[in-house]
Amino acid sequence: MEKKIQRVAMLYDFYGKLLTRKQQEILSYYYEHDLSLGEIAEEFGVSRQAVHDILKRGEKILEGYEEKLQLVNKFTSERDKLNQVLALIEGFEENDPLKEQIREIVNQIVQIQHE
Amino acid sequence: MEKKIQRVAMLYDFYGKLLTRKQQEILSYYYEHDLSLGEIAEEFGVSRQAVHDILKRGEKILEGYEEKLQLVNKFTSERDKLNQVLALIEGFEENDPLKEQIREIVNQIVQIQHE
Repeated sequence: MEKKIQRVAMLYDFYGKLLTRKQQEILSYYYEHDLSLGEIAEEFGVSRQAVHDILKRGEKILEGYEEKLQLVNKFTSERDKLNQVLALIEGFEENDPLKEQIREIVNQIVQIQHE
Repeated sequence: MEKKIQRVAMLYDFYGKLLTRKQQEILSYYYEHDLSLGEIAEEFGVSRQAVHDILKRGEKILEGYEEKLQLVNKFTSERDKLNQVLALIEGFEENDPLKEQIREIVNQIVQIQHE
């Protein structure tokens, strides 16, 4: 279940902006802010079943985008590669200025991915 | 005009899979295979105006996705950073095995982005 939540939270991170405002709000409450179905239902003045349906529908839309664009998949592969670069430059002499410069650029790439 | 074509071709590269099959085919003919409006119209048995309208509509959809997801923008920034890494490792000793290893990983990242 924890894995499922992480997966949807990541999909939401990449494709959330493609959902409707209402879908975004409800998925954000559930997956990012950890509210329960009951709490969200109360917040929106709808039934728990309605919240459940919107979550399921939203997840399906997000998975549909991932199926086509594979952004989460690519991001994960890229992140692995960037970590390999960081591991390699650990092998440099401690006072090698290139070490700090490359580390800095890799961190900038990670930031770009998170904007 | 050349710039406009490059721009739409890049948007198509990132978001084309989110278009309908027909939009994909027509945009691909025009932006990737460089066919004229007249040639595409003949191929599909429709008017040049219809082809023109589908192209405009498709471009607008692609720009809409970019406005929300910024994939082209992020890709361009990331590519700049990766090139900076490549430029920095040029400063290594020629026989430094780390140079080749880092270059290889950077190339793998570029490949992931193009998958």
